[in-house]
Amino acid sequence: MKILALDTSNQTLSVAVMLDDQVLATTTVTTTKKHATQLLPIIQSAMSAAKLKPADLDRVIVADGPGSYTGLRIGVTTAKTLADTLAIELVGVSSLATIAANIINEPQLVAVLFDGRNDNVFAGVYRIENGVPVSVIKDQHIAFEKLLPQLKALSEPIVVLGDLDSFTERLKTALEANFIEYPIELSLPSAVQLGRLGQRETPVSDVNSFVPRYLRLTKAEADWQKQHPEEDSSDYVEKV
Amino acid sequence: MKILALDTSNQTLSVAVMLDDQVLATTTVTTTKKHATQLLPIIQSAMSAAKLKPADLDRVIVADGPGSYTGLRIGVTTAKTLADTLAIELVGVSSLATIAANIINEPQLVAVLFDGRNDNVFAGVYRIENGVPVSVIKDQHIAFEKLLPQLKALSEPIVVLGDLDSFTERLKTALEANFIEYPIELSLPSAVQLGRLGQRETPVSDVNSFVPRYLRLTKAEADWQKQHPEEDSSDYVEKV
Repeated sequence: MKILALDTSNQTLSVAVMLDDQVLATTTVTTTKKHATQLLPIIQSAMSAAKLKPADLDRVIVADGPGSYTGLRIGVTTAKTLADTLAIELVGVSSLATIAANIINEPQLVAVLFDGRNDNVFAGVYRIENGVPVSVIKDQHIAFEKLLPQLKALSEPIVVLGDLDSFTERLKTALEANFIEYPIELSLPSAVQLGRLGQRETPVSDVNSFVPRYLRLTKAEADWQKQHPEEDSSDYVEKV
Repeated sequence: MKILALDTSNQTLSVAVMLDDQVLATTTVTTTKKHATQLLPIIQSAMSAAKLKPADLDRVIVADGPGSYTGLRIGVTTAKTLADTLAIELVGVSSLATIAANIINEPQLVAVLFDGRNDNVFAGVYRIENGVPVSVIKDQHIAFEKLLPQLKALSEPIVVLGDLDSFTERLKTALEANFIEYPIELSLPSAVQLGRLGQRETPVSDVNSFVPRYLRLTKAEADWQKQHPEEDSSDYVEKV
């Protein structure tokens, strides 16, 4: 299966062109804030390096969240456009699972955290089984202080990856010897892992209705809900 | 430290621009046989994505063998030219150690094999200690059948990475339960690991005299030696 995998869900932009589990070409950039202008040239370079034409692709795989609103929209929109235009399969994979897949020790528990500001995090906990991360605590947007007891209750060594800077000390204090820190490069999202996971998933049945997993309301939605506590905002704000 | 790391020692071409252990931009391509024409554009793209100019670099790190003669010459010549022109540090790292560094479990033994044709291999055995591979059996060019007893004598589980296709069955038979196979992507050389290892090494003292570790004679050298068994060829064939 010829695959294009792309992750723009956070600061890192990662693209991989693969033939099944074999990497043909991959590029990862952590310094850009211009995913919108950099994504297509990087896809084109990778496709060209892999000696593939768009029409050769069988499947596009996108990291569909959680992550930055703008990043997710760029990635998911690009993936949907490619899938629709080329009439190929589309698969979305959790951005947190993509990072958990950097770990191969089995049956290791892996927690992945993205900084959600104001001491909130996007977090998912996975167990590595048969080479892939299997969800143990599903991806959520949660106050970091509420996540800690959930991790502690697992009573098992946990590799913690992601945006750890502001959380490391509290993780150490709460989890003690069960907190396992790994080298920084294992927290880097890799479209290679994304492609590896996404080729094992069932494609989405309807490309057009596919939306990112934001896992929290936008500020506009939250404000609207605050002012209209009696109403359900889901009919008013279209997720795109 | 701002680093450019490059590996063209084998079929895979990998480039990384890093700030210490942090990846700024990295590209890996496995499909090209044109390292000579693809290396500089990929370096330029990665530098540009990382928002660095050549003059910003502190060190260039190159996978200096073993590997293909042509690939090694391209990589080492490019690295020497950059180091000399920019007056920056140069470090060479074993191409086998670069792949071993994909493994982070400690104190795991890792053997890395490159196919050297005619049932010969380039092979090195490392133990992962403090996050880096430490040589246990030094990189060598050896008949595969002579390597097997060396691996077996270690009497310990060994992760075997590299070009395994033609060797897997014999490794399984010889090492039995001590043979550990890992997913294919862990055998892919990554300039990120190269950069991580190379920044911990002492730079070469003389850039100009730096040569790849071919670990075997070229066919021309071997032929010469066959015809002149009484002489030492090392004075006659300049290693470049």
